[in-house]
Amino acid sequence: MSDPTLVIVVPIAGIFGLILAGILTRYVLKKDTGSRAMAEIGEAIRVGAMAYLARQYKTIAVVSIILGAILMVLIEPKPWVGFAFLLGAFCSALSGYIGMIVSVKANIRTASAATRSLSEALRTSFRGGAVSGLSVVALSLLGVAGIYYAYKFFLFPTPEGIEDALSGAIGYAFGASFAALFAQLGGGIYTKAADVGADLVGKVEAGIPEDDPRNPAVIADLVGDNVGDCAGRGADLFESTAAENIGAMLLGFSIWAILDKPEWALGFIFFPLVARALGIFAAAVGILFVNMRNENEDPMKALNRGYYIACALVIIAFYFTTREMLGENYIYFFIAGLIGIILSIAIVYITQYYTSGEWRPVKEIAESAKTGAATTIITGFSVALETTLMPVIAIAVALLGSFYMGVLACPDEESFLIYGFYGTAVATMGMLATAAFILAEDTFGPITDNAGGIIEMSKQPEDIRRRTDRLDAIGNTTKALTKGYAMASAGLAAFLLFGAYFERVALIKDIPFNEAFNVNLAFPEVFVGALIGGVLVFIFASLAIRAVGKAASKMISEVRRQFKEIPGLMEGTAKPDYARCVDIATKGALKAMVLPGILPVIVPLILGLTGAYIIGDAFGHGDVTFMSVGAMLMVGTIVGILLATMMNNGGGAWDNAKKYIEAGHHGGKGTPAHAAAVVGDTVGDPFKDTAGPSLHVLVKLLATITLVFVSLFVIS
Amino acid sequence: MSDPTLVIVVPIAGIFGLILAGILTRYVLKKDTGSRAMAEIGEAIRVGAMAYLARQYKTIAVVSIILGAILMVLIEPKPWVGFAFLLGAFCSALSGYIGMIVSVKANIRTASAATRSLSEALRTSFRGGAVSGLSVVALSLLGVAGIYYAYKFFLFPTPEGIEDALSGAIGYAFGASFAALFAQLGGGIYTKAADVGADLVGKVEAGIPEDDPRNPAVIADLVGDNVGDCAGRGADLFESTAAENIGAMLLGFSIWAILDKPEWALGFIFFPLVARALGIFAAAVGILFVNMRNENEDPMKALNRGYYIACALVIIAFYFTTREMLGENYIYFFIAGLIGIILSIAIVYITQYYTSGEWRPVKEIAESAKTGAATTIITGFSVALETTLMPVIAIAVALLGSFYMGVLACPDEESFLIYGFYGTAVATMGMLATAAFILAEDTFGPITDNAGGIIEMSKQPEDIRRRTDRLDAIGNTTKALTKGYAMASAGLAAFLLFGAYFERVALIKDIPFNEAFNVNLAFPEVFVGALIGGVLVFIFASLAIRAVGKAASKMISEVRRQFKEIPGLMEGTAKPDYARCVDIATKGALKAMVLPGILPVIVPLILGLTGAYIIGDAFGHGDVTFMSVGAMLMVGTIVGILLATMMNNGGGAWDNAKKYIEAGHHGGKGTPAHAAAVVGDTVGDPFKDTAGPSLHVLVKLLATITLVFVSLFVIS
Repeated sequence: MSDPTLVIVVPIAGIFGLILAGILTRYVLKKDTGSRAMAEIGEAIRVGAMAYLARQYKTIAVVSIILGAILMVLIEPKPWVGFAFLLGAFCSALSGYIGMIVSVKANIRTASAATRSLSEALRTSFRGGAVSGLSVVALSLLGVAGIYYAYKFFLFPTPEGIEDALSGAIGYAFGASFAALFAQLGGGIYTKAADVGADLVGKVEAGIPEDDPRNPAVIADLVGDNVGDCAGRGADLFESTAAENIGAMLLGFSIWAILDKPEWALGFIFFPLVARALGIFAAAVGILFVNMRNENEDPMKALNRGYYIACALVIIAFYFTTREMLGENYIYFFIAGLIGIILSIAIVYITQYYTSGEWRPVKEIAESAKTGAATTIITGFSVALETTLMPVIAIAVALLGSFYMGVLACPDEESFLIYGFYGTAVATMGMLATAAFILAEDTFGPITDNAGGIIEMSKQPEDIRRRTDRLDAIGNTTKALTKGYAMASAGLAAFLLFGAYFERVALIKDIPFNEAFNVNLAFPEVFVGALIGGVLVFIFASLAIRAVGKAASKMISEVRRQFKEIPGLMEGTAKPDYARCVDIATKGALKAMVLPGILPVIVPLILGLTGAYIIGDAFGHGDVTFMSVGAMLMVGTIVGILLATMMNNGGGAWDNAKKYIEAGHHGGKGTPAHAAAVVGDTVGDPFKDTAGPSLHVLVKLLATITLVFVSLFVIS
Repeated sequence: MSDPTLVIVVPIAGIFGLILAGILTRYVLKKDTGSRAMAEIGEAIRVGAMAYLARQYKTIAVVSIILGAILMVLIEPKPWVGFAFLLGAFCSALSGYIGMIVSVKANIRTASAATRSLSEALRTSFRGGAVSGLSVVALSLLGVAGIYYAYKFFLFPTPEGIEDALSGAIGYAFGASFAALFAQLGGGIYTKAADVGADLVGKVEAGIPEDDPRNPAVIADLVGDNVGDCAGRGADLFESTAAENIGAMLLGFSIWAILDKPEWALGFIFFPLVARALGIFAAAVGILFVNMRNENEDPMKALNRGYYIACALVIIAFYFTTREMLGENYIYFFIAGLIGIILSIAIVYITQYYTSGEWRPVKEIAESAKTGAATTIITGFSVALETTLMPVIAIAVALLGSFYMGVLACPDEESFLIYGFYGTAVATMGMLATAAFILAEDTFGPITDNAGGIIEMSKQPEDIRRRTDRLDAIGNTTKALTKGYAMASAGLAAFLLFGAYFERVALIKDIPFNEAFNVNLAFPEVFVGALIGGVLVFIFASLAIRAVGKAASKMISEVRRQFKEIPGLMEGTAKPDYARCVDIATKGALKAMVLPGILPVIVPLILGLTGAYIIGDAFGHGDVTFMSVGAMLMVGTIVGILLATMMNNGGGAWDNAKKYIEAGHHGGKGTPAHAAAVVGDTVGDPFKDTAGPSLHVLVKLLATITLVFVSLFVIS
């Protein structure tokens, strides 16, 4: 029995992605670095960012090695799950590193390009971002495929070995999510501690503009953009694609097994890899098409053009791949994939509605700013809660639709559940197929943000600044969109990972899938598991936000101190002590990320082990522990989706309400309404850039951790 | 077959409760109304409050009659569910009305008593509050028992008629929750619109003290305390006790049926009524014991003494009643009841930890106020999220503990589930047994708050003001405790109502309870139901908060206008136009409460009907609609508990952080830290007094509505 021919595209796409990333890196690095002043600032950012990243990875390495060792000893197939875990964490860090190296060099080159033309600045920044997007997705694909094939050929060479190889590979996804949680949390805390500190003292108290070189926290703020949005979100999507690939392969394995393991049906196992591989090509074409037709074109149009091209190519690729690999009822799976792609586009529009100044929600917040900070927060919070409605409906419709497509594709009466889950898996693949493009758009954000900062700090003329401001505004939009995309894909992927969880339970208990497939909320233990899932999300968000509050408070005191104690600082005759602010943000982030990072590992373990070994079957309910853990996962996911959406969109809406006022509405800058809007924006900062994005990762970490540890919880 | 002898205490306790309420009313009314100035202010509050209440009840009557008519036509036994619904809504309004009449007369008498002594003021205000507590609980008990017995004897006189009579009585609980939702929402919006308006312009902008007669919104603010805390929370607990009584009786009926309907086991059906009846006596004794030993005793001690006496009496009563009524394994049920009582005490301590200035959470917020409004909100929000942890753990432990006690009491192998649910029901009864006392403490809050306002407005000497300030501070604590209590009891009661839901499903489908007992979250339709439950809670909270924001904005504009346009207002030579502010709050509340009030009725109906008649069995899953509605209920409950706890405690913590600073910490009043803390307090206002308390009611409304409509959703 040999694997489907199409699998050959997997290594080709992975290597192609890395080569293209290399070519784009060369393209970006060839650009000049502008004036001496610009280069100096760029260098300060680069040094700060790389130093932070190195320390962050050291911390992640320590906790990962401890957890990896535990996995090596505890989890079958030993020690390969633990080994895959370490590899996953390493690859996640590596792809974050590659992205960062380029983005902290692309910023200065974008600033320099902006002195020449807007279109060149767009090209430079977006291609810089694309290095991150391509290397993340390519490394994730190569890692998953590599570990699977390595395990399959060297360790479990029998036909049944597929199962063991996949079991081992789960560790890779877990490692990736574990590293991602720290990366997103640490980066998120860093960036917002610096941002809040810089804004509150610099802009509000001292009354100097954004990114003014006199502000001691300005370099820390620019470093933060990189470590939060670039390295953090990169790790998030690395993890998403890895976990979803392996989860979907597990479901494919079940279908193959149900069909009595014929050669043609191996397609169900390998479709996820092939789909991701073709997605890389599609995204690559889209990336290369991002070019402004002329200096006056809206850069957002150029980005959207590239995105729609990538989507169209993915649709074509999905049609042929599903036909080739997913049996005779492939058309339903194709429709499922289409649903995923449509969901990703729908989320773009929904996010824009809630967070853009053109619509009711942001206008309402801006309006309430006229009566002060308190009403700004009250109205903004109300909007934040409201923004959960449409994304949830969109996710629910996509979930049901793709599940039913899977059911329609099912050839018999009994297996409709596993086919349904596979339908949601195909939809998730459709949604994530363009991940490299989306991530390029996301990393474009901090690059242009940095470029704007460098332009401002090196005191370039007004019209050049206007160019980078324009790109920066678009970067804010694309960052918001990416968060919506990451959240919706987490919601959709969650369901396929639930499916993989039941697949594991069925295997361990040696019962049919349909029997393992039960999380009965009506049992008190299961309900309590659900309660714990919900409260875990709340506590995690609390810790993330508190970390920002604490670090920001320190930053505020330090910035105030420098303004007071350094003579000539306000007049521009003395330089502030940037390094000290960088240091405060670094320490604040590293210290504060550990507890919330470990919590989502500890809680499921305690719940599962207590259930399995203490409560157990004591009260005659039978084995409810796997259900209890399942409920924690599912309700944690629901609460996580709600809270993350609320925080991402709420933060975005506050941000843009401030910008709306700055654009001249309700009196514009310098009015009490503007001051109130700044408070709203500051409150929204840790929502949208620390807690919200970390919650995506948390939701997926809960899924991978339960997958890895389920064998300990199930009383077989 | 005749009902257990002990049932005779039910009418006795109900009538006793009402008579005692009458005696306490006389006691309060006999007190003098103080100076002419005080009487005038008191009269203005009374007129405003009664006018608002009349209009609110008119709105509630209109929507209730429409919904009641629909129920009469649609739901079996026709038209008796609809009739009971109307009666429930009416009794809820009636008990709110009684409580309000007394509390708006007790406020002025408390003010006058405060001119003489602190202990007399405490006695007057607490006994005024007790009128509300006793009449709510007594009317709820008489209503439930009355409707049950009326239906049983006149409509369904056979032994099997118990079932039909209980089915009809469910309407009563639904009517009570429906009215309660509007009462709590309307009252909550009113009170906070007025409060935010009064504070932000009066205290912050104009710099005049709280309750200053120059503030145009001051009367509206004092009216708001009554309609929100007194009428609103009264309706909440009226509904809790009614729903829990009927739900528990349904579970008792199932046990009786399982045991083959012997006479001795009728105790399971009637225990809930008897337990509540004895609770009234216990609470009454506790209430009468609330007296300060001397002028220097801490009034909180006097309150706690009364509470502990009530708890002790409940424990004794539970021991003998369970022994008499709940079979030979009664001891386990007694322990379950004990668990409920302990939970209510634990919640008191937990709430104090999170919201009192003596502990870390509030101090942390106060500390962060030093760096401005933004960090105050960020830290406060982090604390708010954190406060969910301990209450959830306490509820989870109580839930599991009481369920297991029920299982231990089960005489056979098969019925452990229904016995387990009954165990949680007994715990809920234990918790709610002291409801009359708790509600007395709660209503004591607005009475003392009003008394303080009247003292301030009528310019009494400093030392008298200090007396009412002291009572007012304690009133804030008891109000916070009541919210924690109401939330925890809602969480515990939820589980027994889930049980009642499955009982209904089993009955309609004519299958054993254990088979109906399933909400399998792993089906996509069920997961989507859960998602909808979660998002419903978020949207509801959004609407509630937005209503406050909008009405408060109007109030702010009006107060600003009056300060600007009425000459001599600040100097005290001209009077503000209080009536106009009262009118703005009234209109804002009545208009805004309708949509969020109807939403939780519409959404379950749409979900259930879509599931039953459109999706149905189309994809071969079988009947998943009842599970989907069940998941909406359960996950809605979880998310509701989390969000309500977060909002109640977060709001309380912000409030007390402000008071902590006002007490002289971090520079005290007038500093930037204080201004920041005022913003925090203002943001917390709609959290803790509008959205949070309304969410308790929402959670219980979801339970009663699904109980009433389940017959439409189940494909039998």
